[in-house]
Amino acid sequence: MNTQLTCEIISVGNELLIGKVVNTNASWLAERLTRLGVAVKRITVVGDSLSEISSCVSEVLLRKPRYIITTGGLGPTYDDITLEGLARALGKPLILNKEALEMVRKKYEKMGEELTEARIKMAKMPEGAEPLPNPVGTAPAAKMVLGETVIYALPGVPREMEAIFNETISRDVSRESGFRVAELSLRVTNVKESALAPLIGRVKELYPNTYIKSHPKGSEGRPLIEIYFNAFHRDEAVANRLVQEAAEKLTRLIEDAYGNVVSLLEEPSA
Amino acid sequence: MNTQLTCEIISVGNELLIGKVVNTNASWLAERLTRLGVAVKRITVVGDSLSEISSCVSEVLLRKPRYIITTGGLGPTYDDITLEGLARALGKPLILNKEALEMVRKKYEKMGEELTEARIKMAKMPEGAEPLPNPVGTAPAAKMVLGETVIYALPGVPREMEAIFNETISRDVSRESGFRVAELSLRVTNVKESALAPLIGRVKELYPNTYIKSHPKGSEGRPLIEIYFNAFHRDEAVANRLVQEAAEKLTRLIEDAYGNVVSLLEEPSA
Repeated sequence: MNTQLTCEIISVGNELLIGKVVNTNASWLAERLTRLGVAVKRITVVGDSLSEISSCVSEVLLRKPRYIITTGGLGPTYDDITLEGLARALGKPLILNKEALEMVRKKYEKMGEELTEARIKMAKMPEGAEPLPNPVGTAPAAKMVLGETVIYALPGVPREMEAIFNETISRDVSRESGFRVAELSLRVTNVKESALAPLIGRVKELYPNTYIKSHPKGSEGRPLIEIYFNAFHRDEAVANRLVQEAAEKLTRLIEDAYGNVVSLLEEPSA
Repeated sequence: MNTQLTCEIISVGNELLIGKVVNTNASWLAERLTRLGVAVKRITVVGDSLSEISSCVSEVLLRKPRYIITTGGLGPTYDDITLEGLARALGKPLILNKEALEMVRKKYEKMGEELTEARIKMAKMPEGAEPLPNPVGTAPAAKMVLGETVIYALPGVPREMEAIFNETISRDVSRESGFRVAELSLRVTNVKESALAPLIGRVKELYPNTYIKSHPKGSEGRPLIEIYFNAFHRDEAVANRLVQEAAEKLTRLIEDAYGNVVSLLEEPSA
């Protein structure tokens, strides 16, 4: 592939729209995908509403990302309707998936519990979906393909979502993506962000393929700015060189203007 | 009003799409808006890209929410382009807003610094925008109206975003949603802001639904701090009680520590 793989994340859940839950699932996925060389183009949060979910998925499909990952709404309760929303957006019926039913049945059998109607519901998926095992919970995930887009529907419980991503999706993605990421952060003390802006602009022009972003960390009057760099390349050595050269150039520009105020952060952080 | 007011939040920033920053701004806003009786329908995260920002805003406008709140991208750096993206979506030119320029000029004058091109950029807004003061930072926020939708563009730095929401937007919203706001300001002389901070912290813990913010007003050597309180409730009496009890508690704590240095301001000012 010559172009970078793209992804959109759709987070489903009223709890996100009333501010009860912070969307750490999206940032966790975004970080993992970035490290795997995928560009996350957009994150959308919608409520537990069939029309909201299906219209959001339809809109995202029009932008033709390589991947869509949804989180939330796969459980046994009446408002867990993500797969129904996906079925509607894909124009497929929602049917009982035999393989998914077998996954659910085994989970409850192991716990010595019955298969109720609510539990069977977790095995209803859009026609043609491939169920993905949930190593730490009961609701299977689902993988669907529409044209050039691969859609993964993951549960909203963070440890379940993370386990399924780590054990299934990350392998699919890294197989497709040959990209490696290099990262680096500088810490600049006693220079304001607005004073750094033109220097960062000059380095950005010299290194257009290196992402550079300043993050103010200090308080007013005591400026502390962290400057984060990353670059992607198939060749890890090239990615490393891109961030290192850009950081060295910026360090020289800042020190020429303001003296010895730049240090390298051990752990890149934003 | 018979129907519930609606809002969509648009968070702008590559740092959110690479998972380096968790979108706590969106959940903070969602929680505050929910408390004020507003239904948050969707949260969208887009990168620092002119086409992404403007197409996202255009899509949201088609859904006709009462409010759109954007966060991020108001600063002095080359990739702070939210207002340019809004101008494009609104079909307005991006122009130097004189009132905004005056806000920016005063901030840097106070710090004894020059108005550079990067700083003047923060005063460029879509034609017809109303700048909103940023009480704790340099980039003004902006308010725009298109048809039935009111758009607020806020900075991405959480404490700036929160202060502008609390001191300006929450009043607009509560007026429309039938919530009443109660406000009150105290003036404290001859005690430094840093000495007041732990006392304010204790009162905030006791009154989590009352917003409390100190604003230094004096000159160096002669500290004069105004402390602003507000609270929202459908029942005006409850809102009044929330600010009065918090202000009385803080007055007692300050006077126990520093003597008779607190007075009530006739006109609450932020």
